[in-house]
Amino acid sequence: MDKITTSIITIGDELLIGQTIDTNSAWIAQQLNAIGIWVHRRVAIGDVREDILDAMAREAAVSDIVLITGGLGPTADDITKPTLCEYFNTHLVQDKGALENVLHIFESRGLPLLQRNLDQSMVPASCTVIQNRRGTAPGMWFEKEGRIYVSMPGVPHEMQGIMEHDILPMLGDHFKTPAVVHQTLITSGMGESFIAERLVAFEVKLPPHVKLAYLPSYSLLKLRLTAFGLDKVSVAAEASTLFHELKALLADITVADQDITIGEVLGQLLKDRGQSVGTAESCTGGLIAHWITSVPGSSAYFKGSAVVYANEMKVKLLGVKPATLQAQGAVSEAVVREMVTGALTLLQTDYAIAVSGIMGPDGGTPEKPVGTVWIAVAAADGRMVTVKHQLRYDRERNTQMTAVYALNELRKLILQKG
Amino acid sequence: MDKITTSIITIGDELLIGQTIDTNSAWIAQQLNAIGIWVHRRVAIGDVREDILDAMAREAAVSDIVLITGGLGPTADDITKPTLCEYFNTHLVQDKGALENVLHIFESRGLPLLQRNLDQSMVPASCTVIQNRRGTAPGMWFEKEGRIYVSMPGVPHEMQGIMEHDILPMLGDHFKTPAVVHQTLITSGMGESFIAERLVAFEVKLPPHVKLAYLPSYSLLKLRLTAFGLDKVSVAAEASTLFHELKALLADITVADQDITIGEVLGQLLKDRGQSVGTAESCTGGLIAHWITSVPGSSAYFKGSAVVYANEMKVKLLGVKPATLQAQGAVSEAVVREMVTGALTLLQTDYAIAVSGIMGPDGGTPEKPVGTVWIAVAAADGRMVTVKHQLRYDRERNTQMTAVYALNELRKLILQKG
Repeated sequence: MDKITTSIITIGDELLIGQTIDTNSAWIAQQLNAIGIWVHRRVAIGDVREDILDAMAREAAVSDIVLITGGLGPTADDITKPTLCEYFNTHLVQDKGALENVLHIFESRGLPLLQRNLDQSMVPASCTVIQNRRGTAPGMWFEKEGRIYVSMPGVPHEMQGIMEHDILPMLGDHFKTPAVVHQTLITSGMGESFIAERLVAFEVKLPPHVKLAYLPSYSLLKLRLTAFGLDKVSVAAEASTLFHELKALLADITVADQDITIGEVLGQLLKDRGQSVGTAESCTGGLIAHWITSVPGSSAYFKGSAVVYANEMKVKLLGVKPATLQAQGAVSEAVVREMVTGALTLLQTDYAIAVSGIMGPDGGTPEKPVGTVWIAVAAADGRMVTVKHQLRYDRERNTQMTAVYALNELRKLILQKG
Repeated sequence: MDKITTSIITIGDELLIGQTIDTNSAWIAQQLNAIGIWVHRRVAIGDVREDILDAMAREAAVSDIVLITGGLGPTADDITKPTLCEYFNTHLVQDKGALENVLHIFESRGLPLLQRNLDQSMVPASCTVIQNRRGTAPGMWFEKEGRIYVSMPGVPHEMQGIMEHDILPMLGDHFKTPAVVHQTLITSGMGESFIAERLVAFEVKLPPHVKLAYLPSYSLLKLRLTAFGLDKVSVAAEASTLFHELKALLADITVADQDITIGEVLGQLLKDRGQSVGTAESCTGGLIAHWITSVPGSSAYFKGSAVVYANEMKVKLLGVKPATLQAQGAVSEAVVREMVTGALTLLQTDYAIAVSGIMGPDGGTPEKPVGTVWIAVAAADGRMVTVKHQLRYDRERNTQMTAVYALNELRKLILQKG
């Protein structure tokens, strides 16, 4: 069975000088995978005519589909459309639907209209125009020598609207797509090598159309099983059998048997139990609360947080004793114990998380170097667990590692009871 | 003057199915740019032998440098090293330094050592080994037919350590690199098209070795001026002259004249004035506080936050009146006014930010649809500004847009006084 292959070409100097991180490609790949289309190459190039022409020709030589994002804006550095005309040997014409869309957007926002905005309704004559419901630059679908080419704006929510509403259904119609099933197991507490050792026999017997990937994600490890086949039902059945076997082999270290965030894992536990949580955050500055509330519906179990960066706030909001701060310092087991107790009282929740640490680059001492962090998790029934970590990364990564560790500690505390 | 060109090849199925977002390429591009090396192509491929060989040959045909990340882990899906041996027609040998590094890491962490860990010290015989100070997989430097190839692990902090300590200096020695200067202006309150209109004359007269790019970033717009040349001093002087002209043209809408985050912009203003800030967050769930505290040294001006997701917490922590919540609803001007006043009192800061909104996907009503958000910013001297936004994106983007809007409103309030 031949895979339907896609190359994604992202156009824009900002991707090459590192000013922008490419999130579009990951999103597109997820969507295409779900309908059985395989992204086997992603290429990023600048706003350079020759590079665009070259990339299109190269990718069309090895892929069935060439998806292009970026370079469709109203400014002078956006040269994708004239370059598409050159590639497809055609010329720009005005599209009535795209023009109406531009006029409607400017009218509804009460903005004056410039020629360069009107120009966004010009499209290569040989394309099928895909209207953009979220912006002024339309998408474009081309067919040439058995290949499909799609050009879309690089603004993520505009591209996503065009993909979901039009391109994914059109690709599904155009190709006879194979079935792909992904199953993800999230583990904690065991290194990649040790898990691999435990899975030697399992991996050896995997058929060639099933792959297992190891994906470290902060202090967690994701194991992704992927199965391909012609028939959706049999692929799903085979993947399910193997995934159950994998789960049984790793039951003692499993965090979740689906690809969700640690915030979602925790949310499901709390929702199932009708219980609530709050946080008391020093070094993470609100990140743990943000991750909890990133989950839709989190208001069912999340009440609030005290972000207590300054010591005076630890005292005022959480009742941490000045004497404890004085004697032990803000980054200490004694202080996170008082913080988590204070959070349970302040927020009146079933569980609370407290963290205090030194995230860097400054603020370390010989006794408490950068990366020292104390975590406390506690339940209203009196149970409390504290852990210390010594992290070794930069400020951003230390903060995110701390948030994952803290959420995972609370997960373990909640399950301890059952 | 010929540019030194680089292709970045990232290897790993997780990048192609969209499970991982590629942050390495952006970081590498920033570092190379700073020493005058131009990344003109980035390619992502899977853990597939043929695709790796093909990508290396293709990229070497158009680039001076081929940087490869990923596929060097200890598990079965990591096939980069044998494939490198095939490409360079060599074989694996054990490297003494890499072996000592592996032994040292496992000993210091008290972990038992497996054969697959020891195998990480095997390297292609023809490479120059670059020791990895942050992990077990060494970097590798190859030269072939006038091209430089570098293979590094995909774990970001390991790759960064190898680049900073070894590869960047080695590339600097090997090539006579041109000078590149970037200058970035951040603006708010005017659309891309209108700015472009204002800059028509400026853009027309830019010499060919200077480029201007428009980079929308949430509700802000970044304008990046890039100049190339042989001589660092003259390039910097030319870029500086043009950038001053650009700043003068956009003085009324300038947020910052360097590429920093809105959290950093605000931090500088507060630090300069010796003033402090705190937040009262409902719908952003702590994100604004997290962005403020992501800046090293933010403890100088940030005291804390009340994340008040539940209405009872708005009352308890901030003194919002139950009658106001009852009459106006949590997402209302009256409530954010009481929240911001309560935050100033609770946190005893010079400024406070309060936000309340409906981020979606659920919770909207006909009068207050998803995306409705109220922001209040206030100063301890009594000044207060409230704004309402109607956002139109998904939960994540709505939350981030809200955080940018709120921080920018406070920036304006602080400057209002001067």
